[in-house]
This record gives sequence, structure tokens and C-alpha cells, in this order.
Amino acid sequence: MPTLLRKRALPLPKVYGLLEPGPVLLLTTAHKGTPNVMTMSWHTMLEFEPPLVGCVVSRNDHSYTALNATRQCVLNIPTVELATQVVGCGNTSGAKVDKFARFGLTPVPASVVAAPLIAECYASLECRVVDTRLKNRYDLFVLEVLKAWIAPACKAPRTLHHRGYGAFMVAGETIKRVSRMR
Amino acid sequence: MPTLLRKRALPLPKVYGLLEPGPVLLLTTAHKGTPNVMTMSWHTMLEFEPPLVGCVVSRNDHSYTALNATRQCVLNIPTVELATQVVGCGNTSGAKVDKFARFGLTPVPASVVAAPLIAECYASLECRVVDTRLKNRYDLFVLEVLKAWIAPACKAPRTLHHRGYGAFMVAGETIKRVSRMR
Repeated sequence: MPTLLRKRALPLPKVYGLLEPGPVLLLTTAHKGTPNVMTMSWHTMLEFEPPLVGCVVSRNDHSYTALNATRQCVLNIPTVELATQVVGCGNTSGAKVDKFARFGLTPVPASVVAAPLIAECYASLECRVVDTRLKNRYDLFVLEVLKAWIAPACKAPRTLHHRGYGAFMVAGETIKRVSRMR
Repeated sequence: MPTLLRKRALPLPKVYGLLEPGPVLLLTTAHKGTPNVMTMSWHTMLEFEPPLVGCVVSRNDHSYTALNATRQCVLNIPTVELATQVVGCGNTSGAKVDKFARFGLTPVPASVVAAPLIAECYASLECRVVDTRLKNRYDLFVLEVLKAWIAPACKAPRTLHHRGYGAFMVAGETIKRVSRMR
């Protein structure tokens, strides 16, 4: 049973360090009172401050309608303990399944958006949609992160990085080099 | 001394599996006969076939001018053996330094673009710019991968994933789950 992780606020200028390594995300929405969650890997940072994120939510995904209508979501970052949930959420549709109940994920109210945080994820980013100019061509949404949460207990998060067809690279050691790069 | 890796062609539908995990890239350009290389982490897949990639090349980067003018580049994927080169290329400008010579990287002619492959990288993707609609707002270029190369000897590439300020997560083990996700 994955742990419910206690989170504290993370300063927004630190958000890019969570997403730049490229982890698989669990994107939550809430539409007409119904929360949903999808697995998503196609994302990139676009700006440090305020943190802007480009992400692809396909029009074939049930979450597309909710994201489009509400213009809000939460990007939750799971670790390897949630591998079964990550695959489960990717293999099912919110149109048919309450994925929170099915996969034992715990929704927690967010502070500024209606979509829920996922208690079992080590970090959660509350977002609003700020640019949809490339939505029609690539299903690309530009999100602004409004509020960020992190579990301080999780020092070396073993995030998941999708290599395709259910193969995930699990984050290994961290090395340091002297760098002037942010 | 990093190894010169022998590469073979990779079918284009397999390209996403290289980029979706979120590795740091070495982006090469060639402008007016001069090759250059920059370190880049802000990228996402946008489409499977043909493979489309969104990537941020800042207007403050020397490579921006070359990419803008030639509309061609190569995305090279380094592994941990090249950590010093990755940081070195990120901390210097091609306006002042021949980074290939300075950091011991070996340019190899590409097949369809003027920018070179990097022999020491385990994979290289020859690209052309196909969409610049979000360039002015986010320095975002949409690339189409025209030709892909991979070193078959490199089965479990220990790619680098930037966490900020010279801290890199190194790719760990790969786990498999039964999945219907591509």
C-alpha cells in the first residue's frame, strides 16, 4: 500500500528542477464534480518564473474534455512505488472507471484549483491553462504553475521515466558537477 | 576518453522511446561552415510519426541564430560518461569557443542535415524545424526527426537528467509492466 505523503509548499522558482528530469506524471482534473487522473509523459518546461509547462493531452484522452472546459489541472509526480497505478491509469478511461477508487489513489483538495492533489505522489503542481495556440495542431497546452507542493521526506525520489510499452527507467543516483547553468 | 560509438539507423517510429524519458541532449548546429553544440533539457515529444519534438532554444543561446537561420539541427543523446562535456558545453558559448575541440567531441557528417552527429553520443536524431509559431513567445521550436541513429552496443544507456545547477540524475534500472500504452 503506497504511503500518504505529507507535503509542504515549494517556492515556484524551484519547480523546474522537478519536471526537467522528465518524469512520468499523473495529471488530475475535476469536471462537473468528478475528479479524474491520467498518465502523461509528454511535457517540457517553457519558462522558469512563473513556471510554464508545455504538455500534450491527446484529444483521445477522456481528460482532454475536462482540461479544455475547466482550464485547470494538477501535475502529480509519482515514484516507483506507484508503478502499478501509473500503468493502470494509462490503461483505463475515466469515462468508465473511477480510477482513484480502482487504483487506491487518495484525492486531496488543492488550494487554488478544483482538481485534486494525489496524496501518494511526492510532488503536486497546481496549474491553469494559459495558452492553447498549439492545441489544435499538437494537443499542446501551456500551463502556468500557480502553487507547488512537495514531500520533504522524499529526498531522492525514484521517479519513473517511460521508455515505451510499459518499460520504465527508474531514477538512479544523482551526480554533481560545477556548473553555471541553472 | 569517451568511446566513439558505432551507430546504425533506427526506425523513426522508435524515436519517441529515446526522448520520452527526458534525457539531457547535446544539440548540434552548423552555420556558415562552423559547427556548434549546446546542452539542452527542455524538450518534449509532440507526435509519434513522423516524430515531432518541441524544444526550447533560448534567444540568449549562441545556437539560436544558427537554428533560426538554417532550420536544421541534430539532437544527440549523451550518457554519464560525457557528464563533463555536457556541463562544459552548457557553461561556454560557441561565440568564443570551439566546443568540439575544447571538450574532445568528434563531429561526424549527418546524412540529411548539415549539422554534425556527435560520435561519442549513443544516439543522434537529424532534425528540421517545421513550426515556429511559439518561437517568439517561448523560444519553442517544433522539430521533425528525419533520420535517427543509435549505437546498438548501448543496451541500457545511463542517460543524464538535469535537476538544476549541475545536479544530474543518472538513469537507473528499467522495470516492465504489462501495458496497452505505447
